[in-house]
Amino acid sequence: MSSQIEDAASADSGRRVAVLIEYDGSGLAGSQLQSNAVTVQGVLEAAILKATESAARVSFAGRTDAGVHARGQVASFVTPSMLDPETLQRALNAWLPEDVTIREVADVATDFDPRRDARRRHYRYLIDNRSARPALERGRAWHVAGSLDVATMADAAQRLVGQHDFAPFASRLGDEAASTVRELYCFSVNRRGGSILLDVEANAFLPHQVRRMTGALVEVGRGRSSPEEYAALLAGPPASAGPAAPPHGLYLMGIEYSEPVFCALDSEEGVC
Amino acid sequence: MSSQIEDAASADSGRRVAVLIEYDGSGLAGSQLQSNAVTVQGVLEAAILKATESAARVSFAGRTDAGVHARGQVASFVTPSMLDPETLQRALNAWLPEDVTIREVADVATDFDPRRDARRRHYRYLIDNRSARPALERGRAWHVAGSLDVATMADAAQRLVGQHDFAPFASRLGDEAASTVRELYCFSVNRRGGSILLDVEANAFLPHQVRRMTGALVEVGRGRSSPEEYAALLAGPPASAGPAAPPHGLYLMGIEYSEPVFCALDSEEGVC
Repeated sequence: MSSQIEDAASADSGRRVAVLIEYDGSGLAGSQLQSNAVTVQGVLEAAILKATESAARVSFAGRTDAGVHARGQVASFVTPSMLDPETLQRALNAWLPEDVTIREVADVATDFDPRRDARRRHYRYLIDNRSARPALERGRAWHVAGSLDVATMADAAQRLVGQHDFAPFASRLGDEAASTVRELYCFSVNRRGGSILLDVEANAFLPHQVRRMTGALVEVGRGRSSPEEYAALLAGPPASAGPAAPPHGLYLMGIEYSEPVFCALDSEEGVC
Repeated sequence: MSSQIEDAASADSGRRVAVLIEYDGSGLAGSQLQSNAVTVQGVLEAAILKATESAARVSFAGRTDAGVHARGQVASFVTPSMLDPETLQRALNAWLPEDVTIREVADVATDFDPRRDARRRHYRYLIDNRSARPALERGRAWHVAGSLDVATMADAAQRLVGQHDFAPFASRLGDEAASTVRELYCFSVNRRGGSILLDVEANAFLPHQVRRMTGALVEVGRGRSSPEEYAALLAGPPASAGPAAPPHGLYLMGIEYSEPVFCALDSEEGVC
């Protein structure tokens, strides 16, 4: 099936489109196709087949784990469909389940690669810091009861900004030879009512990096470690930076390309 | 069952407590007890029985319909339980389903009545105004695609502030003899990213009043009626002000008493 789809995509040259996707990760086993689980790629490829009557293989800007949400995931595929972008968007949304929606469809160059061409990625981690477990935010935020010192967390976060080897914050390292150096452009911590928002932007992230940076940062907020100790985690061995925060507080907010791909601009998603 | 519980509550004088409740109304058939449906009152009375080993009849500050959410609903009951407020809160939350949570428990005077003693009620109506249906906000906002003129909506809303007979905005009138005059303290309309927030505060509201005020206000936003026509709805016959907006965009945000009952203050819930 996989190779048939790839052959089909390269055979009909067709056109290449990019889609801006929002999803509630609660009921999804992550972004990447799995044979026995509901994934973003699975439901999107099924919707493309229904909407265009032609199979396509989808590639994503970023991989997200089971439970992780997205406001601005980007995917791309080649299709022989002649539907204009707005009609294609409506057709896809008619076939997608209610926890996945296409915010926008755009025509892109045939050599566009949503992962390789991405310049910046913006993730948000949402902490519910109220005393009782949340009802409305359940599955949408990590509930951390007890006092968290946001100013000290912000101080610690700031120390990770810049170009570093983030291997200590990775959970699994795929290719031993690949570089684990990434550049963090900003990492902010803000209280908004009973919530704490962590916004982080980088050229790219290692697997589980944001969740591990968050897990260790909450230890700083609890007073169990200092901003100095947080910064010193960068000097540790691979995957040494403590447990990852749970997936359901994490949101892939947006992907930036050197040339803007989508019109949708949402001030709520403003970078840090 | 009902009369047994009421007898029990008045018999053991016990103490009276008030609880601050958050709920996701999606899976609830409203606030008030029903024999064959899951309601806030039903799950709360069941949790009280489990947590205190004593039945209690709960009364609410405001009735909410099926699908309506709450950030700050207030309920009260009499209990012989000697658990301190924080322990009682934890015990109740341990027995409540995940879509209902007690944010705070407070001891109150034995004659406290959460409905009668309320001075101000704050409701928020959340509109998702993005072009595609929402994934993350599904069931949490009314999706209204297409352009909405927020400035004109704010102009219209402002014309309802003050003391008026709101009968045209009511859906059902219980007691013919009861007054339908209410005082609106404020009614604001604000865009936040792809969302539009309506915040309205009054001494009290008629059944479905906020949803009918919202439904007609969206017609103004669409340019189908003017702020003058919106204000003129007040002069119409009872229940004449057009269709109600759906319940799943509505949030009971908070109830104000002449003496503060709870410590929980959340800047997100600030009144308009």
